[in-house]
Amino acid sequence: MSNSSAKKEEAKVPEPTLRRLPWYLSNVKLLKQRGERFVSSTQISKEINIDASQIAKDLSYVNISGRTRVGYEVDTLIAVLEDFLGFTESHKAFLFGVGSLGGALLSDTGLRHFGLEIVAAFDVNPQLVGTSLNGIPIFHSDTFEQKRVEYDVNIGVLTVPIEIAQSITDKMVAGGIKAVWNFTPFRIRVPEHIVVQNTSLYAHLALMFNRLNFNEVKK
Amino acid sequence: MSNSSAKKEEAKVPEPTLRRLPWYLSNVKLLKQRGERFVSSTQISKEINIDASQIAKDLSYVNISGRTRVGYEVDTLIAVLEDFLGFTESHKAFLFGVGSLGGALLSDTGLRHFGLEIVAAFDVNPQLVGTSLNGIPIFHSDTFEQKRVEYDVNIGVLTVPIEIAQSITDKMVAGGIKAVWNFTPFRIRVPEHIVVQNTSLYAHLALMFNRLNFNEVKK
Repeated sequence: MSNSSAKKEEAKVPEPTLRRLPWYLSNVKLLKQRGERFVSSTQISKEINIDASQIAKDLSYVNISGRTRVGYEVDTLIAVLEDFLGFTESHKAFLFGVGSLGGALLSDTGLRHFGLEIVAAFDVNPQLVGTSLNGIPIFHSDTFEQKRVEYDVNIGVLTVPIEIAQSITDKMVAGGIKAVWNFTPFRIRVPEHIVVQNTSLYAHLALMFNRLNFNEVKK
Repeated sequence: MSNSSAKKEEAKVPEPTLRRLPWYLSNVKLLKQRGERFVSSTQISKEINIDASQIAKDLSYVNISGRTRVGYEVDTLIAVLEDFLGFTESHKAFLFGVGSLGGALLSDTGLRHFGLEIVAAFDVNPQLVGTSLNGIPIFHSDTFEQKRVEYDVNIGVLTVPIEIAQSITDKMVAGGIKAVWNFTPFRIRVPEHIVVQNTSLYAHLALMFNRLNFNEVKK
């Protein structure tokens, strides 16, 4: 992993803060495009409807200080936020399960701009093994442990069918993976020191359908 | 929208419940594959580390009742959950912005199995307009209002650059879109009656990187 700096010794940043920081980042990037050189938490607050005091508090976790009246320097704030969020570093990852969603993620070059580089994918389908997608090689799942050492990867993206979500996770962890980005709707179990980030597109869909339905009925 | 039943008149289901229900669904599907015919909340609880009382409470929002000792019938629970979560209905959607992520989502046929059918996409890139991806036509953004009436769509998937995230959202809402699935890291503003579901892959990445870093330091 990176060797970078003091931030590592700081307290654990609350999850809600980590969820809001990317909003501030994209907002400040926009203000920069509009020619702004300084930005205050009050200004960000107006743009995105979050309390200025909350924004200031969130930004206090990041190593930047604003100046009274002028606020934060836009360029510095962008650089510091990108660094803090890990977007400037390249984090190598493996992807497990080159189905429809897995293939789509391999094709999404946008992830690279946010620090995730999928360097190889794994599957058992003989029609896929040995080929590549978007320049990313697809290996047989059995070769994972060997490849992990070779590539020095510690993030795994999980896009397999739910039936094997747990067994593949167990394999990943046994092979040395430290963080699992779980795209399956399955709630995987991992040892305590392993990071899991759940991104279930289907859970988000369910939420959206439900609210849409609810609004339709209210009318 | 659908005409289906009594669930519509019920109380608003809490968001955490809606986020957990897909976990139960995938878990129960797995139990079915293993040949189980009945399942209790205690059983689900053991599999996914959530309190049985919480599971029972969550399932009380769904129109199903378990029987003492035997629990819920697996087939019925799956059917009722899929219906409740909106996965059995087809919800038509438009996608805005056929960049890397937008293109990836158009290629992901998995969304269809969970009730979302992207029927058309919009962009302004002359190299894309008039073509199609995975059988989905790409139209010029200017034709959106006309196409919306034609296709009778009320969900919009937002995968445009952040600079135009707000203006495209405004256009969508003005044109009659009722729910926005926002994949941009930008916090869009909408009128109160419009549903927004944020799925920022980049925010999730930031969270994962941060926790990974934190664990590395603890060692």
